[in-house]
This record gives sequence, structure tokens and C-alpha cells, in this order.
Amino acid sequence: MSSLSLFKDVPFAEKLEGSLLKAYKQDDYPKKLFLAYRVCMTDDGHPWVSLVVQKIRLQIAQDPSLNYEYLPMMGMKSFIQASLELLFGKHSQAIVENRVGGVHTVGDSGAFQLGAQFLRIWRGDAQTVCIISAQKELYGPVFQAIGFTVYEYCIWNPKKLFTDPDIFLEVVEHIPVGCVLVIGNIVDCRLTQSQWIKLMSIIKSKQIFLFFDIPCQGLSTGDLEEDSRILKHFVSVGFEFFCSQSLSKNFGIYDEGVGVLVVAALSNRHLLCVLSQLMNYAQALWLNPPATGARIITSILCNHALLVEWKKSLEGIVENIMLIKEKVKEKLRLLGTPGSWDHITEQSGSHGYLGLNYQQVEYLVKKKHIYIPKNSRINFTCINTSNISYITQSIHEAVIFTRDSQAS
Amino acid sequence: MSSLSLFKDVPFAEKLEGSLLKAYKQDDYPKKLFLAYRVCMTDDGHPWVSLVVQKIRLQIAQDPSLNYEYLPMMGMKSFIQASLELLFGKHSQAIVENRVGGVHTVGDSGAFQLGAQFLRIWRGDAQTVCIISAQKELYGPVFQAIGFTVYEYCIWNPKKLFTDPDIFLEVVEHIPVGCVLVIGNIVDCRLTQSQWIKLMSIIKSKQIFLFFDIPCQGLSTGDLEEDSRILKHFVSVGFEFFCSQSLSKNFGIYDEGVGVLVVAALSNRHLLCVLSQLMNYAQALWLNPPATGARIITSILCNHALLVEWKKSLEGIVENIMLIKEKVKEKLRLLGTPGSWDHITEQSGSHGYLGLNYQQVEYLVKKKHIYIPKNSRINFTCINTSNISYITQSIHEAVIFTRDSQAS
Repeated sequence: MSSLSLFKDVPFAEKLEGSLLKAYKQDDYPKKLFLAYRVCMTDDGHPWVSLVVQKIRLQIAQDPSLNYEYLPMMGMKSFIQASLELLFGKHSQAIVENRVGGVHTVGDSGAFQLGAQFLRIWRGDAQTVCIISAQKELYGPVFQAIGFTVYEYCIWNPKKLFTDPDIFLEVVEHIPVGCVLVIGNIVDCRLTQSQWIKLMSIIKSKQIFLFFDIPCQGLSTGDLEEDSRILKHFVSVGFEFFCSQSLSKNFGIYDEGVGVLVVAALSNRHLLCVLSQLMNYAQALWLNPPATGARIITSILCNHALLVEWKKSLEGIVENIMLIKEKVKEKLRLLGTPGSWDHITEQSGSHGYLGLNYQQVEYLVKKKHIYIPKNSRINFTCINTSNISYITQSIHEAVIFTRDSQAS
Repeated sequence: MSSLSLFKDVPFAEKLEGSLLKAYKQDDYPKKLFLAYRVCMTDDGHPWVSLVVQKIRLQIAQDPSLNYEYLPMMGMKSFIQASLELLFGKHSQAIVENRVGGVHTVGDSGAFQLGAQFLRIWRGDAQTVCIISAQKELYGPVFQAIGFTVYEYCIWNPKKLFTDPDIFLEVVEHIPVGCVLVIGNIVDCRLTQSQWIKLMSIIKSKQIFLFFDIPCQGLSTGDLEEDSRILKHFVSVGFEFFCSQSLSKNFGIYDEGVGVLVVAALSNRHLLCVLSQLMNYAQALWLNPPATGARIITSILCNHALLVEWKKSLEGIVENIMLIKEKVKEKLRLLGTPGSWDHITEQSGSHGYLGLNYQQVEYLVKKKHIYIPKNSRINFTCINTSNISYITQSIHEAVIFTRDSQAS
């Protein structure tokens, strides 16, 4: 009977991610470690949540006057407004001129999905999406599924151990005219004034469509302004673009997917046309976005005292990340591990490259049961007082081992 | 400068719905009424929320041990399991045999979107989607956007004033071989035993793919079992299908979009293949579904006392709906309104047809400021003690007026 199934031609789908985590889970070694979680962890190994979020969550649950009606298709208006002000700054000229707006989405995947659908239809000539980032991003498949040809470029320079503006510029020089350029989280990429000018001129002359990703504003440098600097730069000189703004990570509301697809246009008229089209696509995708996360975030962003509290919690976690990195570096120095480890503290944010080669990574995974991705980009908040010595000692051994094995 | 916009060719999009609500909002008449809200309203005009939901929401917010990490891509496992048991019954043979499963989605729109994407790829020969329902459904555009040709059939018989099984069968007889047949909320459609047999035989011989919609289990008849009867019938005789199961309306968590795309397959092997493919599409759509609604619902469904409390709240609201309908009918009888109004109480659920013609609807909207859709399908929970007299008196006038104007 089962051979007659309507699904008989459907094969088991290859999983798109998670093999490292799977291997970790199957490992019986008691001291095994997984250093690639997506979210910031606290020192006791739990996902970080801004304390002010917990407080507001409770306040909302206790409010009998709250209305749980469907949100409008565009999403929660006050949430979109507050998110835009967070991104561009309250007194941004673009906000004053009503030429930036947004659609409330189901997280950043939702924002990319929505934006990609729009671009597929309204920039039909753009067949190509080029993704530039300091890491491997999750949204390549989103564009691929919609029919774009996707090229991904990692601008982390594994030899020089930094996010390399030269690679950035070289990539942009060679990508096709009229393509969509997704610029991932590249806060650490320091372009000189002349590089900036060159970049903008290429983008303009090639009629490239920009699509930014601001996945965790405030969690990179601890400074909200600094983390959206690149975006403010582009909007101030009159570029039009999309931007996926996620607010799940920087508030610690991972399980709600709170995002905005931000649209920057030359005028309010163009903005309203684009938003109206996006709204129709959003209707087919999810009709109404989920409200809980947005409600919590809006309560915080629109209340000065809560906002200050939240900002402090961001600064706190970023300081903590820096402290962990400093400690890792210091421990490697004390162990006499060959090589310079300054790149660890030169990278901002929770995630960063250890700067190990494949062989060293393999040593950590196979011999030490420390699960890290092949590119050695780890989540530093997974390192805490109880595992730091084991981790640094293991890195030391990996480096020594591979040096010895290469020498022999 | 603005003429050089990248968005210069993007027109303002026509809105897909909401013109009636817009007209209502623009009306200055103090006694204006809107009888087409999507959700159940309480007697004091607020969206209904099951009281047990409020309690659990608070409990969750007070729980410091809760983890707000991303959900797996498939969604919350315990939620999916509990939802399936609600739909098919705890001791369903299909559950025991592990041949029904689901993916946690962003509401019913998300479920249709996900299912449609799968069907577009894995049933490439199926170009046509036929939607059968007692009302105009929102998911036509979802299939259309993905490239299907969509035909919609309303099986409400406006002359005989009931959901007509003959129309249902006639439609199924004439739809193309191999198409996707979406069966909307048709709890009121009473097929005879021989009609059932005929229906199943046509579906089988035409290799039609079934896609059910269970938008508000328990809110139609007040009986959870009864409201998913049609589904249980099909699964018990070995049909494979998709089903969009929404749990937003029957818990009163409208702003969270809590849904499951349910898959019924002939065997566990086929089921797992389909789920694995769906998971990849879900990753591109929203990566991780929102958790709040699912967490609340799972807490209720998995606790016997809370489940009983929730069921009572469902029975309560359905009784209340029946009471409103009885009152409307009684008032029309007392007013001596021409015609039979039994169809009002013969329909189950919050929404139902008044059975008025276009002219009568126009009279209500234009003369009486009572905003109802052209097909006269209203939300009966929008009628309450403070407006029922005005509404019934107006219906009476509309009927008399159109009779007189036709006579003259």
C-alpha cells in the first residue's frame, strides 16, 4: 500500500545545518564543549536575557486591559517607529523626511524572505545576489529558494587575521552590474575615507541594490550608534536600500523572531509604494506578525528609564565578552602558545575567529571534544570560568601539535 | 533627484482587504456598527480570550527557569504533539502508527504558505488549486503568489440558505484531475453516507491532493471532536493530506499566529521525508517559529485540569453565540419580518450568513451605518445586548424596504 503514496517521490531532505551540534550531542565524553551556539550565553551557561525584558514580560502578563487582537498586516506601528529610531537615531534627517519605513517581520529570516520576494518581482533584471560578510550567513538559501543565483564572500582574512576592507572592495569591484548586494554584520571592517568614497562610487555606477543586515545592534561594540554606523552613512548620502533589523538577540527574545524589514527610499512617495507592495507579500507569508516580542521591545524603547536600563545591560554583556577574550589571550600568553592572539580582542561582538587552521580545529574536536566550526569562528560567551582553562590548554596543545606534526 | 529612485517603477499596491473596515472607520455616525471582525467578541465588545490563557501567560512570565532560546526549525515538539492529539484524538490509529506529523508554523497563513511551497515543487504537475468553503477564504492569494491557478467555490446556497452538499459534490466532480483541493471550514455541510462514498471515490480516482483548513476547532459546534470530524474520517480510511491547523482563535491568542501544518501520510517513512523537506522551506520562511503562543497552548493541552477549564470556556462562548442567534431570530419574529430566519440558528460558529441580498446589505450599510460584507456573512459575536435591537430593527426595515421597492 505504501508504494502508492502521493509522497512516493519525495526524498529525505539533507539538513541545512546542525551537523556540528548533532555530533556534539552524540558525544558521550563528560567534559565535551560546544562553542558555536548562536546566542549570547551567561556565565552559568544559559541564553542571555536582558533583565529589563523579564520585568516587562511580567508587567504585560499582568495587564488586564491589553488587547490580543490580530496586529495590522504591516505589524505593530509603534514598534516599527521605535525600531527605526533605534537604527537611524531619533533625529535622523531620513526619519524627519519620512523616507524610511519598515514592515514588522517574523525575525530576520522573515525580513530577508519578504525583501527577496519584492526584489524578485520589482528588480526582475537582478538575477544575482552577492552576500558579503565576516562569516557564513544563514540567508543565502532564502534568496536561492526564490530563484536568485547567490554568491557568498567572506571578508575575514584568515592569513592577516582581520576583517579585510581590501577584500570587501575587490569583491564589490567584481560583482555584476545591477545585482543585489547583501552586506552582513561587518562592524569590524574599517574602511578609510578614500575606500568609502570608492565603495559608494562603484555601488552607484553599477546600480547595485543594497540589502543590509543589522542582526544585533548594540551587541557588537556595546554602542548602539556605532553598530549601525554603516547604515547611517549610506542613508545620509541618499542611498536607497533594504535592511533586515533583528531585535531578538539584543533583547534576548530569541524564541519570538522580532524583526523589521527597513526600507530607505529617496522620497516618502516611493517609500509608501514599496511598503504597500511589501504588505501584500507579508499577507501571504504570515498575515500578521507575532506581537509578544514587539510589545516587550516597544515598551522598553519608548520609556526613558527602561531604555537606559536596557542599554546598561548591553554594555554589561559586551564588557563581559571583552573580559572573556582578554582572559583567553592572557592564558594563551602565559602558556607560551606560539603566535599572536591579538586578533581575538580586536574583533567585536560575541562571535569571533580563533584564527586556527582546519588541522587545529580538527584536533580540538576529535582529541579534546571541543566542538567548534571548521573556520574556527566561535561564540566567546560559551567560554566561562569553569571551562576557560580546559579550552585554552586545548588550543595550546592543538597549536603545538600541528606545529610539531608539520615539522616532522 | 527622486525620479532617479531605484523604486521608480513600483506602483502603490491595491489593498487586498479592509475596504469595509476603512469605510466604517471614516463614518462619523455615532451609532455605526461593524459586524465583520475576524475574532470572537465578548459582550462588552472586546476580543475574546480564554481565561485560562491569561492565567498561564502570567505563570509563564513568572517562571525564572524558562529558556528563551530559539525553537528548533520544526518548532516546539511538545506543541506539535499536543496539537495533533487535539486534532485526531489521543488514541488515533494514525498517531499510534506514526504516520501523522506536523511543522509548527506562523499561524494558518504560514501553514498554507509552507504547504503551497512544498506542493509547487513536489507536485509540479498540479497547476491548479480549487478552494471549497462556506465563505471567502484568505489563502487564495497565497497559492496564487506561488504560481498556482486558483479557483474558489463557495458552497453556501444563498437561495436555499444552507451549506449545500450537492454544490460540494458537483464542484469536486468538475475540478481537474490531479489538482489540489483545499477544503475550508465546512462543519455545517452534512453529507449523506452515499455522498461521502461518492466524494471519496472521486477524490481517489482523480488523484486529487487534499488540503484541509481547521481554523478554529471547538468554536464551531463547541465540541472539539465534532469540529475535526471530516479530517478524522479521511485519515481513518487511509487518505494522505495536508491540514492547516490554527490555534489562535480557539484560545484567543490572535496576535501570535499559532499554527501547525499537519501532514498525514501512508507510512512513517513517507511522513519523515515530507517533514524533512518542509523543515528546509520553513528555515527560509522564518527560521524559527514564535514560541509564546505555542508555550501557552501546550501548557493547557498537557494539563488535564487546565484542558477541562479551556473546554468549558469554549462551550461557554459557543453557547453564548447560539443565544445571540436565537435572540436575533426571536426579535425578527416579533417584528414580523417577512421570511424564515431559521438558517441563522442552523449555522454553527461565530460567523454566519444573515441571508440578505445585496440590496438589503446596501440598505444596512448606507442607511443604517451597519457595516456588513456584501454576502451578508457577519460575526454574530459583534451583536450584544446594547446593539441587538438596533440591528434587528434595521434588518427588518431593510427587508421591508426592498420588498416595497421591488413591488413598486
